[in-house]
Amino acid sequence: MYTDLVAALDIGGTKIAGALVDRRGGILLRAQRPTPAREDGETVMRAVEAVIGELTVSPLWRRAGAVGIGSAGPVDASAGTVSPVNVPGWRDYPLVARVRDAVGGLPVELIGDGVAITAAEHWQGAARGHDNALCMVVSTGVGGGLVLGGRLHPGPTGNAGHIGHISVELDGDLCPCGSRGCVERIASGPNIARRALENGWRPGVDGDTSAAAVAAAARTGDSVAVASFERAARALAAGIAATATLVEIDIAVIGGGVGKAGEVLFAPLRRALTDYATLSFVQRLAVAPAQMGTDAGLVGAAAAALAGRTDQAVAGV
Amino acid sequence: MYTDLVAALDIGGTKIAGALVDRRGGILLRAQRPTPAREDGETVMRAVEAVIGELTVSPLWRRAGAVGIGSAGPVDASAGTVSPVNVPGWRDYPLVARVRDAVGGLPVELIGDGVAITAAEHWQGAARGHDNALCMVVSTGVGGGLVLGGRLHPGPTGNAGHIGHISVELDGDLCPCGSRGCVERIASGPNIARRALENGWRPGVDGDTSAAAVAAAARTGDSVAVASFERAARALAAGIAATATLVEIDIAVIGGGVGKAGEVLFAPLRRALTDYATLSFVQRLAVAPAQMGTDAGLVGAAAAALAGRTDQAVAGV
Repeated sequence: MYTDLVAALDIGGTKIAGALVDRRGGILLRAQRPTPAREDGETVMRAVEAVIGELTVSPLWRRAGAVGIGSAGPVDASAGTVSPVNVPGWRDYPLVARVRDAVGGLPVELIGDGVAITAAEHWQGAARGHDNALCMVVSTGVGGGLVLGGRLHPGPTGNAGHIGHISVELDGDLCPCGSRGCVERIASGPNIARRALENGWRPGVDGDTSAAAVAAAARTGDSVAVASFERAARALAAGIAATATLVEIDIAVIGGGVGKAGEVLFAPLRRALTDYATLSFVQRLAVAPAQMGTDAGLVGAAAAALAGRTDQAVAGV
Repeated sequence: MYTDLVAALDIGGTKIAGALVDRRGGILLRAQRPTPAREDGETVMRAVEAVIGELTVSPLWRRAGAVGIGSAGPVDASAGTVSPVNVPGWRDYPLVARVRDAVGGLPVELIGDGVAITAAEHWQGAARGHDNALCMVVSTGVGGGLVLGGRLHPGPTGNAGHIGHISVELDGDLCPCGSRGCVERIASGPNIARRALENGWRPGVDGDTSAAAVAAAARTGDSVAVASFERAARALAAGIAATATLVEIDIAVIGGGVGKAGEVLFAPLRRALTDYATLSFVQRLAVAPAQMGTDAGLVGAAAAALAGRTDQAVAGV
């Protein structure tokens, strides 16, 4: 049987997206359901099965040779389970086995959503051609993934690259993860907005207190808004520099809503990197905005399936 | 020609050591010279050549098939050059080409000294059997290296694992490297001693103000000495947790003089790790003292030569 396609699943706290994807990353068929995130685990799984069902009824389906899943984390690729923070009904949920049952035993690859985004940027986006890269999503949370030596580095459990939860302030504020001074605790969109509000920034007549609104204010020169982005940029720079110093990356790609703030974020980030990325082998580190759009999770999950980490997937059930 | 040995060089700011090493890590022949660290580059190289000369005159030499070098950093394995901070006569010094000339064209592998220690601990020491490990030297400075997916991860330039110079205090004290709040700036031996003295600790009648003396005071319950080690432990814990969160390691091995402080360091380190290593996939992270002695650098350089990263060595000249 000639299998030139893979199925991809992108599972988040808001939506479950599925697609059939060709070997060049082209999406031939899509399916989507809202995530019933507050429901019990079986109800969530039925939504996944509904997405898969829309793919399997297609005549294209028989060309699919594997399934890639990018899931909100934490995941455990070695066990084939997921425990997404925002889907409390799934704790150590055997997603790989359940999906394999739903697709008639095809190989199933599981990676975290930050790793999936990274696979997509490395395959088709801003990290293309870079053998050592960090790709980040700076949004409601801060996630990421790594490419090392030309290959995706998901780590044994599929969670590597979790830059949002490294501490850059030993004595900093408590983070919901339990640690202190995490990059996410300083640089995520909600924290950028919170800090601006705490320091006296006030929204416009529309009452919009999002990080995007703070970015708009920063663009008009509002000093409190500028300072809040500068603080986020320093935390991101310290985290990116730490990553480069630990594993030697030559580019950091930044996507997500906060990444879209443009020079309001990237200008202070480049300045701060010169403060924190000081050793000779990290001084040439570049930062660039992400290029992949909302399909990044699906394209990255497809990339993982095409790369075929089937050894781990088989070991995982 | 049957080559069952490798030559190893361990180049530091104090001494240049050489050895012929067998495939089990046994040292069959040794040579050593003090490093003329304040002299010009050619004088330093003559000391290296003198060490090599003591090895090449041995009848064992003809069994040597490759040379491994572990050097004080920064190094640039891709260019085959070294720029050790404490050897100012060597800046972008073409050590690989010079050593290859001195050994009649054998393949030469160059790695940083932290990476060499890691290779040794992974091969024969506390990281043996661990596929994902961080090995550290906590001493006058703080260095390290990584094993990822069962293999040494030197990075493109041979400097990966530089945990001493990741910032865990965004607004912390300036570090000689140019950054702020680096792990080394808080946790190195001299900084442990400095902090104790600043906070009122006084040495005994021998006048010893080393970190070892602070450790001895901590063992007798001196609260300032205890607090200085606790602070160092928190910085190390934040750095180790960051590494685990970024690349998924399951053990951190700590050697060097400060590592020898024992429970004065390890007890608060284990406590602090529960504060900073919070995500599910890093909670089982272990810490352990290093097992390799002063030969770690030589054994690690030999391991690199045996592993034969000859592709990089050839590309590097």
